[in-house]
Amino acid sequence: MKNTRSAQITEVKVNDPYLAPRIRRCLETTIPKSVQHCRTDGRIDAFKLQWKEGMPNKPHIFWDSDVAKVLEGMAYAFQLTRNPELEKELEELAGLIVSAQREDGYLNTHFTVVEPEKRWKCLQGAHELYCAGHLIEAAVAHFRATGKRNFLDCMCRYADYIATVFGRGKGQRRGYPGHEEIELALCKLAEATGKKKYLDLAKYFVDERGQSPNYFLKENPQCTSRQLENHQALKPVREERNAVGHAVRAVYLYSGMADVAQAAGDKELLRACEAVFDSISEKRMFLTGGIGSDRSGESFENDYNLPDHNAYAESCASIGLVFFASRMFNITGDGKYMDVLERALYNGIPSGISLDGYHYFYKNLLRVDRNTHWLFQKTRLEWYDCSCCPTNFCRFLPQIGTFLWSANDEEVKLNIPAASVYEAAGRKITVRGSYPYGTNIEVEFGTDAEFTFSVRIPLNGGAAFRLNGTNLSLSPRKGYVSLRRKWKKGDRLDFTLDMPVIVLRAHSSVTFNAGQLALMRGPLVYALENLENIRNLSQLLIPAEQSFKLAEAKELPPGTLAIKGTAYEEILSENSLYTQAVPGFKKTTFTAIPYALWQNRGESEMTVWVREYFG
Amino acid sequence: MKNTRSAQITEVKVNDPYLAPRIRRCLETTIPKSVQHCRTDGRIDAFKLQWKEGMPNKPHIFWDSDVAKVLEGMAYAFQLTRNPELEKELEELAGLIVSAQREDGYLNTHFTVVEPEKRWKCLQGAHELYCAGHLIEAAVAHFRATGKRNFLDCMCRYADYIATVFGRGKGQRRGYPGHEEIELALCKLAEATGKKKYLDLAKYFVDERGQSPNYFLKENPQCTSRQLENHQALKPVREERNAVGHAVRAVYLYSGMADVAQAAGDKELLRACEAVFDSISEKRMFLTGGIGSDRSGESFENDYNLPDHNAYAESCASIGLVFFASRMFNITGDGKYMDVLERALYNGIPSGISLDGYHYFYKNLLRVDRNTHWLFQKTRLEWYDCSCCPTNFCRFLPQIGTFLWSANDEEVKLNIPAASVYEAAGRKITVRGSYPYGTNIEVEFGTDAEFTFSVRIPLNGGAAFRLNGTNLSLSPRKGYVSLRRKWKKGDRLDFTLDMPVIVLRAHSSVTFNAGQLALMRGPLVYALENLENIRNLSQLLIPAEQSFKLAEAKELPPGTLAIKGTAYEEILSENSLYTQAVPGFKKTTFTAIPYALWQNRGESEMTVWVREYFG
Repeated sequence: MKNTRSAQITEVKVNDPYLAPRIRRCLETTIPKSVQHCRTDGRIDAFKLQWKEGMPNKPHIFWDSDVAKVLEGMAYAFQLTRNPELEKELEELAGLIVSAQREDGYLNTHFTVVEPEKRWKCLQGAHELYCAGHLIEAAVAHFRATGKRNFLDCMCRYADYIATVFGRGKGQRRGYPGHEEIELALCKLAEATGKKKYLDLAKYFVDERGQSPNYFLKENPQCTSRQLENHQALKPVREERNAVGHAVRAVYLYSGMADVAQAAGDKELLRACEAVFDSISEKRMFLTGGIGSDRSGESFENDYNLPDHNAYAESCASIGLVFFASRMFNITGDGKYMDVLERALYNGIPSGISLDGYHYFYKNLLRVDRNTHWLFQKTRLEWYDCSCCPTNFCRFLPQIGTFLWSANDEEVKLNIPAASVYEAAGRKITVRGSYPYGTNIEVEFGTDAEFTFSVRIPLNGGAAFRLNGTNLSLSPRKGYVSLRRKWKKGDRLDFTLDMPVIVLRAHSSVTFNAGQLALMRGPLVYALENLENIRNLSQLLIPAEQSFKLAEAKELPPGTLAIKGTAYEEILSENSLYTQAVPGFKKTTFTAIPYALWQNRGESEMTVWVREYFG
Repeated sequence: MKNTRSAQITEVKVNDPYLAPRIRRCLETTIPKSVQHCRTDGRIDAFKLQWKEGMPNKPHIFWDSDVAKVLEGMAYAFQLTRNPELEKELEELAGLIVSAQREDGYLNTHFTVVEPEKRWKCLQGAHELYCAGHLIEAAVAHFRATGKRNFLDCMCRYADYIATVFGRGKGQRRGYPGHEEIELALCKLAEATGKKKYLDLAKYFVDERGQSPNYFLKENPQCTSRQLENHQALKPVREERNAVGHAVRAVYLYSGMADVAQAAGDKELLRACEAVFDSISEKRMFLTGGIGSDRSGESFENDYNLPDHNAYAESCASIGLVFFASRMFNITGDGKYMDVLERALYNGIPSGISLDGYHYFYKNLLRVDRNTHWLFQKTRLEWYDCSCCPTNFCRFLPQIGTFLWSANDEEVKLNIPAASVYEAAGRKITVRGSYPYGTNIEVEFGTDAEFTFSVRIPLNGGAAFRLNGTNLSLSPRKGYVSLRRKWKKGDRLDFTLDMPVIVLRAHSSVTFNAGQLALMRGPLVYALENLENIRNLSQLLIPAEQSFKLAEAKELPPGTLAIKGTAYEEILSENSLYTQAVPGFKKTTFTAIPYALWQNRGESEMTVWVREYFG
C-alpha cells in the first residue's frame, strides 16, 4: 500500500453545515481575538526582548509557543483568504520573531531576558524545545503561505544550532524535550527544506528519549518513575505499547514518531505507534475522542479509567490525537485511524470552543453538574493564562479541510463526506450534502482523469452507492470502498448513508458509566443539557428500546438535529440524603443535542452518559 | 433540659464483639507501634531541641502534635490498664516535653530549632497553635490519668504566654490558628484547672476568626477566598450555616465552638453549631460518616457532592465529627447527634485502621477499584509522614467507651447498646449482648439508686422493652426512651432490637450513586469485596426486593455477620470500549461484610454502593 498525504490547505474548500462555520469563525474571530490577547498580555512584545526585572508581563516559558501557534493559524488563514491586511500583520509578526534571534541562532524570549543562565538546563520542565518546535511549525506554515524564506531560514539557523547542542557527540547534551513537539516540527522542516539533517535530529530526539542513564534523572535526581512516565521518558519509546503520561505531550510525540517512522521506513517504530494508538482507541479514550483522564497529571490513566465527570480531555490533546491519527492513516491506509480522527474532530475538539469562536474549554468534561469539581470550568472562558488550547484552535480549525481528503498519485480518498471541494493535481471533486446531519451525499467529478476514488464509511454508518444513477455493490476494505476508473467531468457518485440513532454502552470496567447509555448518530456524540430536560439529569433515565426522533434543535445553528425520545424521571418521595424510600418513575421526554454544541445557549448542566431505564 | 456529660474513661468498660477488640488492640499494638515510629523517625527526640541544620530528622511543623496525641492515648491507656511500665514511659515522655519549654513559656520544637525567626509569623500554614492545642489536650489527659501536675502546669504557662501574644489588646496579634484545635483544648484546660481565663482565650480564638480585616490576608495578601474558606476564615464563625473547608479543621473548630457555647450559655454560637451540624448530616456526609469530599482541599464540598470513589473522608475527620457530635448531644440531648456519632464510630472510623491495629487508611473511600486514583492508597499503610491519622487512633480508640454513655445527676443515658459496664456516682449498669450483630440486649442494674435511665434506639432499629420480664410500652423522644424509677440492684431491663437488613438509596443529587443501593443493618454499613463476589463489582447488580440472609463472615473476627443474597452479573458479549451490544444478566449471589472490616483478608476491590437490579 502506497502512503497517502493529507490534502494541502489550499486544496480543499469546506462547505458543510458543521465544520465550515467553525473555520469561518476562526478566521473572523478566533485568530484576531487571540492576536489581540497576545498583544495585550505581552506575549507578542516579549519578542522585543526589552523585559527587565520589575517590569510587568514577564515572558513565561511557554509564551513563544502561543505566538507561534497564532502565527501558524494566520498563515493558514492567509492561504484560505489571501487577505492583504492579514498578510501585513503576518509579516510584521514573523519579522518581530526573527528579530529576536541571537547571534548563535538561539531564539527564546524567556531564556533570553528572564533566565539566560538556565538555557538548556531544565529541559524537563521548561518547554524550551517545545517552543522551538512551535516556532518551526509556524515558520514552515509562513513559508508555505507566503513563499518568503526569512522566518524559515531563521528557524533553520535555530535548528542547526540545536543540532550542535544536542546529540551523542562529544560535548553535546544527550537531552530531549520535556514537552514533545519539536520532533514533528523538525520532520516538517525537513520536508519544507528537503534537508535530511532535520529528520536526523528528530530521530535523535525520538530515540534518545527514555534511554538509560535517564537524562531527566540527571537534571533532577528526585524525579519519580511516575514523573518520568508523565513525560513518556520511563523507557525508550520503541518499547512502549501503552499510551502513557501527559496526553498532549504523548500524542505530539507519537505524531513525531509516526513522521520519523514514515520518512525512514522504520517498521519497529511504526509498530510502537500502532500499539500506543490501539491502547488509546480501545482502552483509554472517552466516547468523544477526548484523552487524558487524570487531572493531576493531565495524563492517560490505566485502561478503562475514564471518569466522565472528571475527564481532563484537554482540547489540545484531542487536536494532537487528530495529528497522530491522520499520520497513522496516511501511512497504513487503515480506516480505524480515521474513525478516531472523525470522533475527535466532530466531538471532543469542537466542544472546546464556543460557537462565537472566542470562548474555550481547556478540559472537556462529559458530565457537568453540581458535583463538578471546582477546579474545572463549567463554562467556556475567553482566554487562559496557560492559553495552549485557544492558540491551538487558531492553527487547527483552518486545517480542518486537510483531514477530509487524502491522496497520492493513484488515488484520492474522501475520508469524511462533509460537503467540500477538493482540487489538486488536475483532479477536482465536489462533495455536496449536509453531513453529519443529512444522509444523502453527492460526489461530482469535475475533471477527466483516471484514478482510484475511495470513500470511507463514516462512524456508525452504512452506505448504498450509485454511479451516475446506477446502483453499485461495493465492499469496504479497512473501512473504505474504492472505485478505479477514468473519471469524466460530470460523473456523479451518490451515496446514502444509513445513520440511525445508536445506543452505546461503555465497557463495564468503565465503572463510572455502568448501567448508563449514550446516544450517537453518525459521527456525533449527543448530550443532554438540563435547559430543555428535567433539571436534575441524574434523575433522568432513558430506555434503550424505542423509536428515537430527529428534530431541528432550538437556538442552535440552522440544520442542527436534536434527538428526542421517551425518558423516565425518577420521583423521590422525600428529600433525605440517604433513604429507604423506593423511587417511582414518571414518563417524560428527553432532548439531546450534539455534544460539541453544548453550553452555547446559556449556563446549563450536561451529561453524555444517561442512566438506562430497564422498567 | 439539663446538659449531660459523656462518661469518663474510667467509668466504662467495653465488652462487645465489635468495639472492645479495637480498644484492646490499640492498647497492645497501636500505641506501642506508634511510640516506636515516633522514636525511629525523630518525632520524640525533637523535644531534646538538639537538631541543627544538616542533621537528619528535621522537626516538622506538625510533629509535636503527633507525639502529643500518642501521649494522650498513653494516658488513657494507663487509665484503663494501670500498667506500671506504661506509666514509666508516660512520665518520661511528659518530662521530655516539659523540658523543651522555653523560659517565656513557649513550647514548639520546629519553631525553636528550625525557624525561630518565624515564631507566630505564619499562623495560616504552620500548625503552631494546633500543636499547642494537642499538647494541652495531652497534658490534661496526663493530669487526669496520673494526678501529676508537671505537664499540666507547663501547659498553663504556655497558654498564659499565648494569651499575652494573642488578643485584642495593644501590641497583641489579632491572629488565630490556621488549623483549629487549640479552642477545644483550652476549654479542656479551663475545666481541668477551673480557670476561666483559658475559656476566654478559646472564645477569643473562636470569635476573632474570619473577622475583617482578615488576619490571614494580612499574613498573605495573595490568599484567595477559597483558601480562606478552606480555613473556615472567610466570615465570622457565628455567621456560618454550612460546614465548609478542610474537614478536620472544621470539626475541631465546631467542637471548640460547641464547648465555648456550652460553657458560656452562648445561644447564638450554639445556633451556628446546630446549623453546620445539619449541613454535614443532611447534605455533606458519606453513608459511612466520612466527611470531606474534596481531595485537593481535604475539604467539604457543595451539598450532595459526595463521590464514593473519590472520597477524601479522612479518618481524622470522622474522629473529629464524633467529638463534635458528642458535644452537641450532651448540650441538646437530641439523639440525631448520636445517630451521626454512631454512624462514624461503627463505620468511617474503624475502616481507617486494620484489625491488626497498625495499618491505616488516611482516606476512607467507599469504592476502591481499578479506577481508583493513584493518589489514593488502595491498601492500609503502616505509617505516614503526615501521621495525623495513626496518632489520632492512639487517642481515640481508648476513649470509645466514653461515647456509649452520658449522664448528669438525674439521668444516665445508654447512647449505644454495646456490651459494657458503666459505673459512676454510685450507679452501676451492665449491658450484655452482641450488638451490633445480636439483637437481644440485657441491661442489669447493679446498685440501688433513683434516676432516669434512657436508652437510644440505634440506627435503623426499633426496640421492644421488658422490665424484669414485663413488657413496657415506651415512646421515644428525640431518639431516646426514658424510664425513671428507684432502681434496685438486680433490676433487668431487656430489649430486643428490630434490625433488618435495609436497602438505602442516596439522594439523586448524589449523581455518583444514582441507580445504586447500599445495605445497612443496625449501625453497620455493608460493603462488597471482590474476594468473595465476582471480580468486576461494577458488573454486579442487586435487586432491592429479596430476603437477605445473615451468615457468619469468613476470615473475619468470630461473630461477624455477613449479608448474603441474590444478585445478577452483567454479561457482555464483546470486549469493546463502547458497544451497541445489549448486556445480558446472569443470576448469582453476593456476600457483603461490614464496611469497616474490608481489606483485612488480602488485597481486594470494594464498593459500598452497588447497582440496583430492576429486571
